[in-house]
Amino acid sequence: MAKPLEALLRALQSLPGVGAKSASRMAFHLLQHDRAGALELARALTRGLAELRHCSRCFTFTDAELCATCADPQRDDSLLCVLETPADQAALERTGVYRGRYFVLMGKLGPLAAPGPQDNGLQRLMERLHSPEASAVRELVLATSFTAEGEATAHLIAQALKGREIKVTRLARGVPLGSELEYVDLGTIAHALADRR
Amino acid sequence: MAKPLEALLRALQSLPGVGAKSASRMAFHLLQHDRAGALELARALTRGLAELRHCSRCFTFTDAELCATCADPQRDDSLLCVLETPADQAALERTGVYRGRYFVLMGKLGPLAAPGPQDNGLQRLMERLHSPEASAVRELVLATSFTAEGEATAHLIAQALKGREIKVTRLARGVPLGSELEYVDLGTIAHALADRR
Ligand SMILES: [Zn+2]
Ligand SMILES: [Zn+2]
Repeated sequence: MAKPLEALLRALQSLPGVGAKSASRMAFHLLQHDRAGALELARALTRGLAELRHCSRCFTFTDAELCATCADPQRDDSLLCVLETPADQAALERTGVYRGRYFVLMGKLGPLAAPGPQDNGLQRLMERLHSPEASAVRELVLATSFTAEGEATAHLIAQALKGREIKVTRLARGVPLGSELEYVDLGTIAHALADRR
Repeated sequence: MAKPLEALLRALQSLPGVGAKSASRMAFHLLQHDRAGALELARALTRGLAELRHCSRCFTFTDAELCATCADPQRDDSLLCVLETPADQAALERTGVYRGRYFVLMGKLGPLAAPGPQDNGLQRLMERLHSPEASAVRELVLATSFTAEGEATAHLIAQALKGREIKVTRLARGVPLGSELEYVDLGTIAHALADRR
């Protein structure tokens, strides 16, 4: 096999969830049917690496010192929503109903998460809460995933904030809109029943 | 969301099988945990686009006018194996038991395949068989997939070669090595029984 093709197959396999078979399908598709897409991807990767860094305040990815949300004077400083990833943040932003500030952990905390010096989201969150611009925070909204890891992360943060004058809340668990009860998992139904209002 | 991140998420979604969720997981992984891998991928894409083209004889991807297999004087000119993709070709090469030449269709033929001027593998195959360097071909080994599309492709090629002095064969269907019969699908068992030897 030609060297540049081998290199491309190997590079594609460094993407999470992409094995030999997917890499081959991807390379074949890009080279044969979507060379413009391949060029676009190469450019987006190069540009992303060069321009994206962590927001110095909320730690999400941004191309400036402060991200657009942190820099926006219209947001409510009394609310701070803690999420795991920029993708979770984007999902919440799309609803248009949250007008507070954010803190992005960039991963999960707790015994199930891989620890590492780059991943100390809890310590960064505590530093953020001690900073002058966080003095207005009255409520921390825990919007980590409703998985074992996300729940452990939320629990750790709640523990770390005990005794402080900040209200800690969690997104509600329940049946997703548009769901037929028959197809919703039992744990979700049980929670929706317990949290009924 | 920062523009370069939006562009990266969009570009990743142009990969086959990658939706919004996978793209977000990939971008996050590359930016946060594998910047070297991201750089490598950008380079491999750029290099692949610049250097890879179709072999003028067998149509596989190569970085030269002729691919290594077509340029190899040691291969058996009387055998021509027809496959769908360079990945299939690589798989057959890895077995080390085939010493003939190749022709790569770069897709599937037949009513189930998407037609297009770039995808006329059958016409290219016929042109190849009429070329001087194909005069030694005595046997065409059809190694297209054992799927409905692959079978249709093999059938179309066999039809197109009727009346010519070239023997047309097909890879044997049967039970894969290492399989327990209990877990092999019924169609495969039926074929293995019919083709028993
Ligand atoms: Zn920010
Ligand atoms: Zn070739």
